[in-house]
Amino acid sequence: MLQRPEHQVAGHEAGSGTLGPLIDGSGHFFKPLNPSDERGAHELAFYTSFFSDPRVPHSIRSSFFPSFGGTRVLPIPDAPDLLLPHLVLENLLHGYSNPCVMDVKIGARTWYPSASEKYYAKCLKKDRDSTSALLGFRISGLQVHHESGRWKPHRDKVRKYTVTDVRQSLRQFISKNPDETPPDCALASSVYGGSNGILAQLLELKSWFEDQTLFHFYSASLLIAYDKGGKAPRLKLIDFAHVMEGEGIIDHNFLGGLCSLIKCVSEILADAETAAGPTDPQVLETTADLEAAAGPAEPKVVVGLTENGIH
Amino acid sequence: MLQRPEHQVAGHEAGSGTLGPLIDGSGHFFKPLNPSDERGAHELAFYTSFFSDPRVPHSIRSSFFPSFGGTRVLPIPDAPDLLLPHLVLENLLHGYSNPCVMDVKIGARTWYPSASEKYYAKCLKKDRDSTSALLGFRISGLQVHHESGRWKPHRDKVRKYTVTDVRQSLRQFISKNPDETPPDCALASSVYGGSNGILAQLLELKSWFEDQTLFHFYSASLLIAYDKGGKAPRLKLIDFAHVMEGEGIIDHNFLGGLCSLIKCVSEILADAETAAGPTDPQVLETTADLEAAAGPAEPKVVVGLTENGIH
Repeated sequence: MLQRPEHQVAGHEAGSGTLGPLIDGSGHFFKPLNPSDERGAHELAFYTSFFSDPRVPHSIRSSFFPSFGGTRVLPIPDAPDLLLPHLVLENLLHGYSNPCVMDVKIGARTWYPSASEKYYAKCLKKDRDSTSALLGFRISGLQVHHESGRWKPHRDKVRKYTVTDVRQSLRQFISKNPDETPPDCALASSVYGGSNGILAQLLELKSWFEDQTLFHFYSASLLIAYDKGGKAPRLKLIDFAHVMEGEGIIDHNFLGGLCSLIKCVSEILADAETAAGPTDPQVLETTADLEAAAGPAEPKVVVGLTENGIH
Repeated sequence: MLQRPEHQVAGHEAGSGTLGPLIDGSGHFFKPLNPSDERGAHELAFYTSFFSDPRVPHSIRSSFFPSFGGTRVLPIPDAPDLLLPHLVLENLLHGYSNPCVMDVKIGARTWYPSASEKYYAKCLKKDRDSTSALLGFRISGLQVHHESGRWKPHRDKVRKYTVTDVRQSLRQFISKNPDETPPDCALASSVYGGSNGILAQLLELKSWFEDQTLFHFYSASLLIAYDKGGKAPRLKLIDFAHVMEGEGIIDHNFLGGLCSLIKCVSEILADAETAAGPTDPQVLETTADLEAAAGPAEPKVVVGLTENGIH
């Protein structure tokens, strides 16, 4: 029943001597706890603490984090005689047949103040070589399903993304034809927009980060996922191997990056809505899909944006 | 008529062979443009660009920035035969007889992506040695006038401030007796609170930073000032020698630090209001000053905070 996740876009992959996550058919995602690597123990400690802390609002836990079911000992695919404890998490792509997925690592810096000089130097180099230092976030991986197949840029290519590439990818991610120039952004309103869309979810998460001083999420990612099935797009925080105690200070590094992502997504949505002309039906194309995608602006989100911006 | 500013709490001071700012009796602040240092030219370029850019809202320019009157050639105090161009700025403390002043350098990092390796290493060290990396801001200097005189910690002491020291200073800054333990925070509501107070101004500035992608304010400071004269406390951005073009990206570094400062100020205000018990007059002390300071919570600000936080 256990298998390697088909739609993983970042992180370690199981097989060929490498430990990686497994999924089952019931919506579980098993992440190996490598005993020779303290990151697993650290992530387990985070989940245990986070899911038992009464100061974390229930709505935040259930909306933005994978559910957590402790640990389970499982055989390793390439070495079935070898048993290893795994974190039991929610498979965030369960129920999606052809998920479009993006992994966005949030924060201009991925090193934490108590890091060793070696780890710190390694992170700092990656932050400066990627878009993290400039943009406050970087894309770690993505895939888009479209009519003629799956578009998944190679990791080495994603690693070299410039700010322009990141902006482009955020547009390709919600396009029917990601390869088109410029990307059509036909799904902008249905994925990024609306009261259950990614932008509304990002704004809700931001509200919590403006207030919470419990945890600092260094090197964590936002997983953004949707499929064509009409379910609300999902936004979840993942990868907690480097979460630190907040010690009464807000996570200004994560919050700054989150605000930068919000700005980028807002711009794409505003452009798409202008292009689709929601007040001018003549501009709309005639396919039902496109009409649904470009559909009426959600007043709730527009008000939120206006409050946040002075134009 | 020209003299050295009496209430400067950070930055270079004029005299003894060092260039520093001068003030006149009409509310001007003259900042020397040292021809051997590109920072002056850079700051002049910023002021010129900022004050002519139609994309900067008028309310932001007038509320949060010193007014700018070009340049003027002036003699240097210690070498009156030597003439040097100066930036003509607004003396932000003009009209205050006994100003309480704090200089807060905003941002977890003061280096900018294009900085030289030498400058970058110098900034990074300062950011990690001070509270900048941890807290997203650091205090560069402060003074408080109280009944028995002026309290102004020495620069070397301020330079070594820990997070706890910063929190303490933010409380001492609005205390009648800064030396008391714990600080009395008697002026919290009148300085930090209210619809014209520092918190409300910080929130307005934050709204602009969530949207603006024109400038990145590396190593800039917020000057917070008030006196007992009953004027609204002032919040101004200063020190623009390292402002960079935003290139369409929000200033997530400044914004993150600003949100951290907002959180710290909010907590002090909430504590002070709880302690003063605005709904229970028996708890109030009887001096008019203290009543005015602790006075009724401002609904406008409280709503703003509630919207921003999940409790």
